[in-house]
Amino acid sequence: MTRGMTVSELVRRARDGQPRALGRLISLVEDGSPSLAEVAASLAPHTGRAQVVGLTGPPGVGKSTSTSALVKALRASGRRVGVLAVDPSSPFSGGALLGDRVRMQEHATDDGVFIRSMATRGHLGGLAWSTPQALRVLDAAGFDVVLIETVGVGQSEVDVVSLADTTLVLLAPGMGDGIQAAKAGILEVADVFVVNKADREGADQTVRELKYMISLGRREKEGPSWRTPIVRTVAARSEGVDEVVAAIAGHRDWMVEHGELDARRVRRAENEIQAVTAARLRAEMGELRGGAVLEKLARRVVDGRSDPYSAAEELITELRG
Amino acid sequence: MTRGMTVSELVRRARDGQPRALGRLISLVEDGSPSLAEVAASLAPHTGRAQVVGLTGPPGVGKSTSTSALVKALRASGRRVGVLAVDPSSPFSGGALLGDRVRMQEHATDDGVFIRSMATRGHLGGLAWSTPQALRVLDAAGFDVVLIETVGVGQSEVDVVSLADTTLVLLAPGMGDGIQAAKAGILEVADVFVVNKADREGADQTVRELKYMISLGRREKEGPSWRTPIVRTVAARSEGVDEVVAAIAGHRDWMVEHGELDARRVRRAENEIQAVTAARLRAEMGELRGGAVLEKLARRVVDGRSDPYSAAEELITELRG
Repeated sequence: MTRGMTVSELVRRARDGQPRALGRLISLVEDGSPSLAEVAASLAPHTGRAQVVGLTGPPGVGKSTSTSALVKALRASGRRVGVLAVDPSSPFSGGALLGDRVRMQEHATDDGVFIRSMATRGHLGGLAWSTPQALRVLDAAGFDVVLIETVGVGQSEVDVVSLADTTLVLLAPGMGDGIQAAKAGILEVADVFVVNKADREGADQTVRELKYMISLGRREKEGPSWRTPIVRTVAARSEGVDEVVAAIAGHRDWMVEHGELDARRVRRAENEIQAVTAARLRAEMGELRGGAVLEKLARRVVDGRSDPYSAAEELITELRG
Repeated sequence: MTRGMTVSELVRRARDGQPRALGRLISLVEDGSPSLAEVAASLAPHTGRAQVVGLTGPPGVGKSTSTSALVKALRASGRRVGVLAVDPSSPFSGGALLGDRVRMQEHATDDGVFIRSMATRGHLGGLAWSTPQALRVLDAAGFDVVLIETVGVGQSEVDVVSLADTTLVLLAPGMGDGIQAAKAGILEVADVFVVNKADREGADQTVRELKYMISLGRREKEGPSWRTPIVRTVAARSEGVDEVVAAIAGHRDWMVEHGELDARRVRRAENEIQAVTAARLRAEMGELRGGAVLEKLARRVVDGRSDPYSAAEELITELRG
């Protein structure tokens, strides 16, 4: 029960397309509410239908504009679209919130679009915890596509990107050395490269560099491999956005054909189960004999009589006790 | 054994002040080497002496310059200083590496200074895992002060900052709304506020806003509370840096007097033990019956016949099996 409404009633309303019920459910999972397990169980039968698209790239490449243009293109083909905007730096910049409001306005009258900023500073492990739960809410509520937009590719962003069926990496001309430095990082996660602001000088060079990187990466892989496409866009004028939508569809078809979509989703579920389990065990560790076990071990580490690894051994023995 | 040298020999050389041995030890802990437990055990008796200072703030406030000025001031008083430069966005920007080299040069001939950039994209949980280990290496090697410099205050940075005895939050004039938006986030972690670029217009207003925020925060707390000082600096000209050093010393004295230093370090060790334990249990989960248990549970979640919470329950039962 939450504020007089049962979880199943909330889920029913969210599936009916009521944005308030959606927002309440996402808040419940973000806050680690006691009804989390009940919410998860109520959502489960309705999940697995949404196509999940990740969108990342360095600051300044036009991620918000691209997300907005993608939403428009997807809506034009009649699909309902959820957006999770993840900005790990938001406590300082406040940027996500502002950008969010601006975008909210643009789609305010369209109930086929739902946009949500993800808080990064929650308990329970932050984004890596809350984003998969919010994704399950939108999936169960019947959104055809969920876009997860993140800033940069730090560890937490990579965790978030790993939720996606298809990941778009956005770049823009004139980043030169940045692309070189980022080689390893972006090759790993990109299913589709988007060179935005493609009307600017240097776009050809950026595409050339990407092609070279892709050719290097392909040689290292085994088995049938996806040929990562490079799409040029000018998102502010919606140029090339239909090609991005086509590239996403192409990647999905390829994944289905090669059993990769299913494999990714099983991997994603494995990670999620492990994360939930680890969080629960971590809480249990802290509560062993009212916290006394952990405190005693920590005291010995502080005094230099033990170290975190030996202490972990002892803690595991106690947990099994 | 690593490349023909025993761990205890490496630790001996690091404690002798040999930077290569130091670097090798940090690489060992970053990479999750099999000798990790042995390294931790060898370091333990020598740990607990270093003063750990965290330094964070939004981009553009002059964190690198401030770190460099602090290092100089601390060296002038004869203390050995280690720096761990943490930049979660580095895969794209390459900034940490470059900044690191520039700073390395400045202190290249001084063997009382050791500077290391922390890789963020490692296995095992990234920064939250590797930074505490690197800190233990520098502590055991006899550095009097270890500065941990991070960018922004996303979740992983907050985890890192939580390692510090004293945390400096840097701001600069003209950030206006940014400070308002950041209220909750920075009040939580700051032990000392530093307003850098204090010769610029707007410095007085920044200080006023901070004072107001501090007064709000204090009302919410119980017990004897530290009066968070605000220090003005122009780090590029080393102005005000001695006052920062004094504020750090003042905070340390206050913590010792109120038992807070010990309390923080026990809390830090508790977190570290829990993180190591969780990582080990997580690995165990993945290996139950060659991975078959986790895969079966994940398959049921993907098919909508279960959810991550129910699956976690089952996994815990199996782990206890």
